[in-house]
Amino acid sequence: MSTVQPRLAAAPGTLYLVPTPLDFGLRNGPEMDANPVGSASAWLPRDTVAVASQLTHWISENAKSTRAFLKRVAMDTPLALPLQEHRIVELPRQAHKKGDHMTSSELEQQARAMLAPALQGHDMGLVSEAGMPAVADPGSSIVRAAHALGIPVRPLVGPVSLMLALGASGLNGQQFAFAGYVPQDAEERGKRLHELESMCRRTGQTQILIETPYRNAALLKALLQHLQPQTRLAVSLGLGLAHQVTRSETVLQWRSRPDPAAGLPMDLPAIFLFGTS
Amino acid sequence: MSTVQPRLAAAPGTLYLVPTPLDFGLRNGPEMDANPVGSASAWLPRDTVAVASQLTHWISENAKSTRAFLKRVAMDTPLALPLQEHRIVELPRQAHKKGDHMTSSELEQQARAMLAPALQGHDMGLVSEAGMPAVADPGSSIVRAAHALGIPVRPLVGPVSLMLALGASGLNGQQFAFAGYVPQDAEERGKRLHELESMCRRTGQTQILIETPYRNAALLKALLQHLQPQTRLAVSLGLGLAHQVTRSETVLQWRSRPDPAAGLPMDLPAIFLFGTS
Repeated sequence: MSTVQPRLAAAPGTLYLVPTPLDFGLRNGPEMDANPVGSASAWLPRDTVAVASQLTHWISENAKSTRAFLKRVAMDTPLALPLQEHRIVELPRQAHKKGDHMTSSELEQQARAMLAPALQGHDMGLVSEAGMPAVADPGSSIVRAAHALGIPVRPLVGPVSLMLALGASGLNGQQFAFAGYVPQDAEERGKRLHELESMCRRTGQTQILIETPYRNAALLKALLQHLQPQTRLAVSLGLGLAHQVTRSETVLQWRSRPDPAAGLPMDLPAIFLFGTS
Repeated sequence: MSTVQPRLAAAPGTLYLVPTPLDFGLRNGPEMDANPVGSASAWLPRDTVAVASQLTHWISENAKSTRAFLKRVAMDTPLALPLQEHRIVELPRQAHKKGDHMTSSELEQQARAMLAPALQGHDMGLVSEAGMPAVADPGSSIVRAAHALGIPVRPLVGPVSLMLALGASGLNGQQFAFAGYVPQDAEERGKRLHELESMCRRTGQTQILIETPYRNAALLKALLQHLQPQTRLAVSLGLGLAHQVTRSETVLQWRSRPDPAAGLPMDLPAIFLFGTS
């Protein structure tokens, strides 16, 4: 399994993809009062925590969250350096806004510059706000730059909410697609949902969507309006938290409820999935 | 976080999706000699191990692997019952062969019958050979039946090799599709790869494929033959193991190597990913 080893100055360090707990951003809500932030090992395997505790150079979506994460790691295993001596740089803003899969020579140059410590022999951690970096989250520009520079890349095991939701949905897990966000404009959104549903019918694919929590209720409404009655729709809310819920039933069954959202904690982070097979 | 609580006989138990380490099936190879099978907590968070140690009723892809898994759980936390008193039933063969996303009333009936202990108030675990059940693995028919019977479904955090590979690829993690296996027939396979590549170009989607290890080399060859030179191709081998490798470069760069597979442990479980954005 993964261990951080001392290296010669000549060899580059490794870029570790370090997943984080899914409860960040919920620290002040009622959910977190019932489920206080605890040590990282509740969410992460021993080997992931062991590697994270030894890293001192970070590329991060948000430095504040990364410091909070490192405090939780330290509850399990002493950090290699005191927290204030860690070097944490934030991903370029461009990587946040539009996603960083787009090729841009400026972004590529910034990414390479951020990896300078790895070229000097330091292992580095790439970390996003919650869950797995570069999966439904920024970070892929850094990973691409690492490959281009000959820096070994190692992903560490941790929570990936999309796959927790897929497993819990009962939908086809042998063919699926993550489509990200759907448009906010009502007409465009309806068009997009029809397009995705016809993709399900053609290929058997499960479609996976996300939304920002305050628009969860609107997306659920749109899905129930646009999808066919026999399509299966699953919604997972608050995955990994004590009060998580996954509901999976046909659109017809959803529609037959007087209030489809009743009983669901619609203000928690949500994943929406549907399929026709 | 998830805990298994005693229940009244009237309330159904919960169906837990229990992920397992990724090193199963490698127990006798050279890789495993260098990396002997250890306790489950190297791969799984404390909360997952805690729940798994308390379950005594299992629905499993392979009962033998499940017993081996439980021995690794017991290295961390005592099991609620001795191993020989666990009730482990295997998924119907139909669910293995074709994937169990296909609606079949026979399969549905079998799935419901297997969930009888949950209806009697027992918590149950759904477990596949390696990784997350019902994700690129059988099990979704059981999850669907649980939803139909009003049995709460809770997925637990653990390794999902597809997402480790996606993160490590540097490819677009904001839009991606898992296409499973491509056809073995050379002509059909070429056609399918062109189809998937044109999907990348139209949508920006990353395509994710798997193959059985003894055909890894053939699939790599086919990918290098059929994909366009500027398409980025990533291969992850032995994810989670000490000797894991991820290589990510353009098809042109892959092709410029005298032997593209040289230096890669091509006999290990592999994930192939490509994208054009």
